[in-house]
Amino acid sequence: MSETIYVGVDIGGTAIKVGICSAKGDLLHTFEGPTGTEQGTQKILANIAGYARRIVEESPYDWEQVAGVGIGIAGFIDMAKGFIKFSPNLPLDNVPLKDILEAELNKKVRVNNDANVAALGEAWGGAGRGVHSCVLYTLGTGVGGGIVVNGRLIEGFSGMGGELGHMSIVPDLEAIQCGCGKMGCLETVSSATGIIRMAHDAVSRGDRTTLADVENIMAKEVFDAAKNGDEVAQRIVSRAAYYIGKSMATVAVVVNPQRFIIGGGVSKAGEFLFEQIRTVFHKYALDKAQEGVDIVAAELGNNAGVVGAAGLLLDA
Amino acid sequence: MSETIYVGVDIGGTAIKVGICSAKGDLLHTFEGPTGTEQGTQKILANIAGYARRIVEESPYDWEQVAGVGIGIAGFIDMAKGFIKFSPNLPLDNVPLKDILEAELNKKVRVNNDANVAALGEAWGGAGRGVHSCVLYTLGTGVGGGIVVNGRLIEGFSGMGGELGHMSIVPDLEAIQCGCGKMGCLETVSSATGIIRMAHDAVSRGDRTTLADVENIMAKEVFDAAKNGDEVAQRIVSRAAYYIGKSMATVAVVVNPQRFIIGGGVSKAGEFLFEQIRTVFHKYALDKAQEGVDIVAAELGNNAGVVGAAGLLLDA
Repeated sequence: MSETIYVGVDIGGTAIKVGICSAKGDLLHTFEGPTGTEQGTQKILANIAGYARRIVEESPYDWEQVAGVGIGIAGFIDMAKGFIKFSPNLPLDNVPLKDILEAELNKKVRVNNDANVAALGEAWGGAGRGVHSCVLYTLGTGVGGGIVVNGRLIEGFSGMGGELGHMSIVPDLEAIQCGCGKMGCLETVSSATGIIRMAHDAVSRGDRTTLADVENIMAKEVFDAAKNGDEVAQRIVSRAAYYIGKSMATVAVVVNPQRFIIGGGVSKAGEFLFEQIRTVFHKYALDKAQEGVDIVAAELGNNAGVVGAAGLLLDA
Repeated sequence: MSETIYVGVDIGGTAIKVGICSAKGDLLHTFEGPTGTEQGTQKILANIAGYARRIVEESPYDWEQVAGVGIGIAGFIDMAKGFIKFSPNLPLDNVPLKDILEAELNKKVRVNNDANVAALGEAWGGAGRGVHSCVLYTLGTGVGGGIVVNGRLIEGFSGMGGELGHMSIVPDLEAIQCGCGKMGCLETVSSATGIIRMAHDAVSRGDRTTLADVENIMAKEVFDAAKNGDEVAQRIVSRAAYYIGKSMATVAVVVNPQRFIIGGGVSKAGEFLFEQIRTVFHKYALDKAQEGVDIVAAELGNNAGVVGAAGLLLDA
């Protein structure tokens, strides 16, 4: 068998997922093992290499067929060097991951951040398959983003391409400070955290709402209440949707993608949320920048990272 | 002589400018002739081809050294096909310009819009020379834009990449309708037209200002009044600068360019304007997306178009 295969590795705080993809972006095999965070840096590195070898050994493919190994990880990364500058969840700060793994595996290695690889995964083998360009919004604890044009990530000068959660989009008069230190970032209103904060604020000030137990509230409960007619919850959802749609209208005249893809936990709210986002997008986006452009749900779920990590080798 | 040269053509309503560029983006020769608009489509096409041949004939170079001919023109263009869908100033609607000129000149031809070629010109041979990526804002009657990453234009799915003037950036409560039909576009406040409109509004409602003769006022007079301490004029300039800076903070987390370049007539206001833009940019842009990023003046002036048009052949 001379078919080329692509190995992707999605490194999380507790588990490392590895996968084998075909040249078409189909996920053929996956394997998951513990990260080994508590055992330190060397153990994590050994696990990454070990799992990558193991999934190929246990598959019908040979190591010779592997085009390379791609890695997705949360943090700030020098993508050209594959150097991890800072990793929020793992003891991998200042680790030259690409160099170490290339020496260990004798294969090309590429490293990128989790939001970017998820976007590349959706572009290659998910909801963005076959389109000219797509932008992924991952609505979770924060708002992640990634932009793929003609199969390639827009990484940016210092790796900040597609950092859509930190687009300053909320006007000054209603802006709050983001965790990044700046005012009015998209993720202050459109992440799960933002939605929960708005629910908390509304209940705290005594707004008339069915929302309760706000100390433990989840974004899903806000969406459920909104669907059931709770006006406070509807206002919160509208505000989250408004700024996503408005940020998409902005992205539409910057990179003018063919498709916007929405993933992450908050996207489970489905069409109820998507319809509101589309309405705002259509209102604000330049007509010619919205022609033929759609806004759809992500398809790969938790596999986007491993598929996209494998896809980092496509330009190798 | 085996050196490869690049021919650029900048088509305006009254004049066509052609130029020869070296492989480094240096403009070696230029020639300008009438467009021939009043003589119709065929005459314009003949002029383009004729001027392109003529500049090479009159230079020390041979036609064999020409890598191709690039064309910049205002309008909506199918860039892949080099097809002009709509040209606001010329009788070239629905003209397959690339096909016609390739047949006529027996060279590769590329066509793109004026804002994009200006950005490519600055990136290749102007203020963006040698940087990873740059974004050009052209502040004139409208606000034009173009984005170049690793020497290539971000054209977008339908050619709307870098249409920065139509970024909906002004909040609803203070937004007005743009010529494009949408609300709150950057060019409603940060173009010469926007600045003049704000001056006109201020005088009409009786604001205390030294601005006068607003029917014939130019943006320069507003800048001069602001520099001389006129508070109304200062407010207008601040507002124009604020939204440019804020839009740059947005672009910084979408494509994360290394350099922002400002050209066009309004940019002649110089550091007085640029300093205000930088202050806003630094306030709103994600810290890591502004590290090492600068905001500078364009360098090529009216030659940006012809240089950038020639640069369209770089990826040929």
